[in-house]
Amino acid sequence: MEKNRSIHVAMQALGQAARAAARVVARSDTATRNLALIATAEAINRDEALLLAANTQDVAQAKQKGLEPAMIDRLTLTSKGVASMTTGLRQIAALSDPIGAITDLDYRPTGIQVGKMRVPLGVIGIIYEARPNVTADAAGLCLKAGNAAILRGGSEAIHSNQAIAACVREGLRTAGLPEQAVQVIETTDRAAVSELITMSEYVDVIVPRGGKGLIERITNEARVPVIKHLDGVCHVYVDQSADLEKALRIVDNAKTQRYGTCNTMETLLVHTEIAKQFLPLICEILLKKKVELRGDEAACALVSSMKLATKEDWHAEYLAPILNIRVVADVDEAITHIATYGSQHTDTIVTENYSRARQFLREVDSSSVMVNASTRFADGFEYGLGAEIGISTDKLHARGPVGLEGLTSQKYIVLGDGHIRE
Amino acid sequence: MEKNRSIHVAMQALGQAARAAARVVARSDTATRNLALIATAEAINRDEALLLAANTQDVAQAKQKGLEPAMIDRLTLTSKGVASMTTGLRQIAALSDPIGAITDLDYRPTGIQVGKMRVPLGVIGIIYEARPNVTADAAGLCLKAGNAAILRGGSEAIHSNQAIAACVREGLRTAGLPEQAVQVIETTDRAAVSELITMSEYVDVIVPRGGKGLIERITNEARVPVIKHLDGVCHVYVDQSADLEKALRIVDNAKTQRYGTCNTMETLLVHTEIAKQFLPLICEILLKKKVELRGDEAACALVSSMKLATKEDWHAEYLAPILNIRVVADVDEAITHIATYGSQHTDTIVTENYSRARQFLREVDSSSVMVNASTRFADGFEYGLGAEIGISTDKLHARGPVGLEGLTSQKYIVLGDGHIRE
Repeated sequence: MEKNRSIHVAMQALGQAARAAARVVARSDTATRNLALIATAEAINRDEALLLAANTQDVAQAKQKGLEPAMIDRLTLTSKGVASMTTGLRQIAALSDPIGAITDLDYRPTGIQVGKMRVPLGVIGIIYEARPNVTADAAGLCLKAGNAAILRGGSEAIHSNQAIAACVREGLRTAGLPEQAVQVIETTDRAAVSELITMSEYVDVIVPRGGKGLIERITNEARVPVIKHLDGVCHVYVDQSADLEKALRIVDNAKTQRYGTCNTMETLLVHTEIAKQFLPLICEILLKKKVELRGDEAACALVSSMKLATKEDWHAEYLAPILNIRVVADVDEAITHIATYGSQHTDTIVTENYSRARQFLREVDSSSVMVNASTRFADGFEYGLGAEIGISTDKLHARGPVGLEGLTSQKYIVLGDGHIRE
Repeated sequence: MEKNRSIHVAMQALGQAARAAARVVARSDTATRNLALIATAEAINRDEALLLAANTQDVAQAKQKGLEPAMIDRLTLTSKGVASMTTGLRQIAALSDPIGAITDLDYRPTGIQVGKMRVPLGVIGIIYEARPNVTADAAGLCLKAGNAAILRGGSEAIHSNQAIAACVREGLRTAGLPEQAVQVIETTDRAAVSELITMSEYVDVIVPRGGKGLIERITNEARVPVIKHLDGVCHVYVDQSADLEKALRIVDNAKTQRYGTCNTMETLLVHTEIAKQFLPLICEILLKKKVELRGDEAACALVSSMKLATKEDWHAEYLAPILNIRVVADVDEAITHIATYGSQHTDTIVTENYSRARQFLREVDSSSVMVNASTRFADGFEYGLGAEIGISTDKLHARGPVGLEGLTSQKYIVLGDGHIRE
């Protein structure tokens, strides 16, 4: 109780400081915020040896604790990783400033001019796991969008994150911005997270980055709005009018380019008319790459080395070399399958048929819907957002890859000349 | 417990039906949804006598229960009120269809084309108090934006709402849309609201319309996102470079055109240089209209019939003929006052000074920020949204007056020609 009380007090102070800093950052001009990003990049570059030493300490402790190799891999910072942080910060600095941009400023019949101005959200809480580079990325994106940030990295990366945070503070000082504009929570106590996600007076939105478990836990407990990213159960539907060569290329890429990403295809749907011709071809490619195949009865009948998929399989986000395959009667059945088992992340139709392409685009209710393109394109950089804080599977506020715009809001502005309402 | 269990079961069934209907509405074309709106308007027009009879029953019961006159006034439906419902529905039908609209479809260096398509949110829950006309308005707006709606009106308006709901169902039938696209909760039990705002599987967003108490209760209990409208503590700041004639007109209008609306000014801020000249003039106008004045010491020194404002007064949303007045040293002090005591609703500067107008627009963090215009303009119709479901004081998703766009989301669409990610 005593400990929780002191964490409560510390977090309230941190929140209050963030709220005050957010007002300063919101009013700062473009050049000032860009300078903070560049100066941070320069500090990180200069302090590379320090950062790598701090990271070595984290990695040693992680190994001692017997953490999984995949986790240690994500935790490990290399010279290349440091360079990619500084490149990222410079790229964010080079993006155009979203804040203050005025759009749709139109005259109304009453004579007033009404438009919208893009504004920061305020204070953004980012909760993430092992990757230390998120500290620099998230700080950069939040600052560029005129926000203050409170960062809570995984406890296993604490030394790395503190070292990076020191560079961010130096960048803020250089630009004359308050250091409290980016605060990294120092305690590794879980109670700090509970405070962060419930202090709606000081925090405007929470962005959790990490596994499904983390995100579900945060969503259930949060009183602050959460921009969340749950599963990526992505589909490719190969229509009867698909160009076979394009279909082979897309399905192969969507499954095998990287297995562990959220925009990787987990289920392939194939129209019954083309299944006999297409399935043996694609399965040969996938089996060569050691992808395990699980199909419905019709698919199993066409490819011998396929086992029968269970109902759970159709819901699964494998993030692994496993693929479900189902033969469908038409595009409606494909759309219904996606609505039933999908996670509203990213789904593609492969077809040369105009009407079915149009129907699929309109009717599939996912954050990214594609025609004749690999699901792997669902990504902030590929979409031209310049940067990405995550991919939202929500519908409110931000949907799909979230860039700078997702970290902002819009207010109405009204220009008059003594106008009153009659 | 037995009763709550049966309400739980009923609400789950209602939610499931809404989710299924939402898919049909989302896919329906523009003409179909417009037909449903027009047919509803025609049914309401035809059934006017029935509607008025049902309303008479509600009003009689409300009087018997001894409800407040203001409440009975909001509850009462007149022939004119019925006509305004049908006009509203026809106006919504005449608005352009937001759904399916594609924007920013640009080619990327990889060759894919990336854009955004506007899509419905899904199922929208609306919780409101006495006004029966909200039933028609909310149904119309949700449908036009391609959504299904679950409506929960005040228990005192139950007969009126059921009569209007029958007309909406007829409209849906006429257009060949499922009747479950707009469902009005029949039970007046509070437990139904608790179910509605927590069944996130079936409901995508809750829009509460009503007093602060209702909205706070819902926000605290909801597991579904809420588009909320809390206080309207609106300010007018009269700068030292204000045109006095415009300032008098705007301040008078912002306070006295209607006292009970959320965009009514509650606090007047006046620059010290202009206070001596301006305050006696405006106070004469306001005192004639029987507005009670509460000021800081400097303001009280200038106008004798003013009492000293307390700290609570600066936070108050009076919705009544009472006005706070404070003399400030400069625009920064005005902006700080608004940040401290305001509710981020609507704030105006009256000035002829270019730089301070620009500063106020940028730095005041409210859903509507104005220059030389009355706060009373903060309204969906005045802004050209065509209709309004409420005014959001949130920053995420929708901010300020919420029209059709606030009831929609956007998904990414990607068009390729066999493109894969390298």
